[in-house]
Amino acid sequence: MGAFKSATSYLTFHTRKRREYVRITDQVADFVTGSGIEEGMVLVSAMHITAGVWVNDDEPGMIADADALLERLAPLGADYQHHRTGEDNGDAHLKSVLVHHQVVVPISGGRLDLGPWQQIFYCEFDGTRDKRLVLKAIGG
Amino acid sequence: MGAFKSATSYLTFHTRKRREYVRITDQVADFVTGSGIEEGMVLVSAMHITAGVWVNDDEPGMIADADALLERLAPLGADYQHHRTGEDNGDAHLKSVLVHHQVVVPISGGRLDLGPWQQIFYCEFDGTRDKRLVLKAIGG
Amino acid sequence: MGAFKSATSYLTFHTRKRREYVRITDQVADFVTGSGIEEGMVLVSAMHITAGVWVNDDEPGMIADADALLERLAPLGADYQHHRTGEDNGDAHLKSVLVHHQVVVPISGGRLDLGPWQQIFYCEFDGTRDKRLVLKAIGG
Repeated sequence: MGAFKSATSYLTFHTRKRREYVRITDQVADFVTGSGIEEGMVLVSAMHITAGVWVNDDEPGMIADADALLERLAPLGADYQHHRTGEDNGDAHLKSVLVHHQVVVPISGGRLDLGPWQQIFYCEFDGTRDKRLVLKAIGG
Repeated sequence: MGAFKSATSYLTFHTRKRREYVRITDQVADFVTGSGIEEGMVLVSAMHITAGVWVNDDEPGMIADADALLERLAPLGADYQHHRTGEDNGDAHLKSVLVHHQVVVPISGGRLDLGPWQQIFYCEFDGTRDKRLVLKAIGG
Repeated sequence: MGAFKSATSYLTFHTRKRREYVRITDQVADFVTGSGIEEGMVLVSAMHITAGVWVNDDEPGMIADADALLERLAPLGADYQHHRTGEDNGDAHLKSVLVHHQVVVPISGGRLDLGPWQQIFYCEFDGTRDKRLVLKAIGG
């Protein structure tokens, strides 16, 4: 029991490729350390509707497999109704829906309480431009 | 640092169509304002197992694309094992699993901390009857 | 308003089958009761990258339908790039991405604030070995 604490930060991305999977575990861990929160949760949430966040393996083959699955389910360049607005990123919206745009990571003893293989990734589905992600930690 | 606060509310839906995507950003924002929470998180979570919640674009074409994807992956009226119970909404359960039934939105400076295009939607997959969603805000 | 509280616990699974869907609502409810938290949230999060957590129906047909969908989208034994590392569980990583590895359940009046049909399941996609899940409750 005790006083409630919170902390907020924003990460910015500008990927070179249209789709890119960026490991951000270290940035989230540093943010949590800086927050002084011992017990709580940190929300890691994309602020764009053409991006996702997942916790999975830092293994290039697995990431290529996931990218191939998403491309199979919602291919780039298909004839999306969204494109009637002039946009060309209909696939990225659908990939965002399938992956989910956020995760919540527990904070225990002042640190991210992740399993041994769990890494946090920002999933860019429509990059080569500035995108943001919010980190929000709450606890005590 | 300071005292911990919380607030709870429930939204009710009764859609005219079986599948419908209802924007609820304003209701969630009003709820957060009323909570008096300056820094925290609000959970937006469907209380039924045939509904979802997502944060995405308020653009009818994109929503039609997502609906078409979900209908392709888990079509209405397919021969689901769930239907042996007498139910006919097996597709809606699967759509709920694929979309996820909840989002968490950060609260910063007393307001929803969303990106410029992010809108919160309740996704009804088996409507024309009363359904509920819970809003739970915590913070300080 | 009041003092902030938190509680942490870990569940361990060792399924007999490779894929198994284990209802854990009662364990999560007991954990919340023990935490003494009246208003807050509990995070239910797999600590492995080949597992998921969902809230859905405790109905074997529906679970079989979801398993069939996941197996159709990311079949066991397909030729995944991840398998070049010597692993054989590429499908399980993809199933985890599709299902999401966590849920957040609101706590109201000291109890899980779930809808009448909502049950929490641990979804094992690569079992027959020890796996862990973290429960983290915060509130007041």
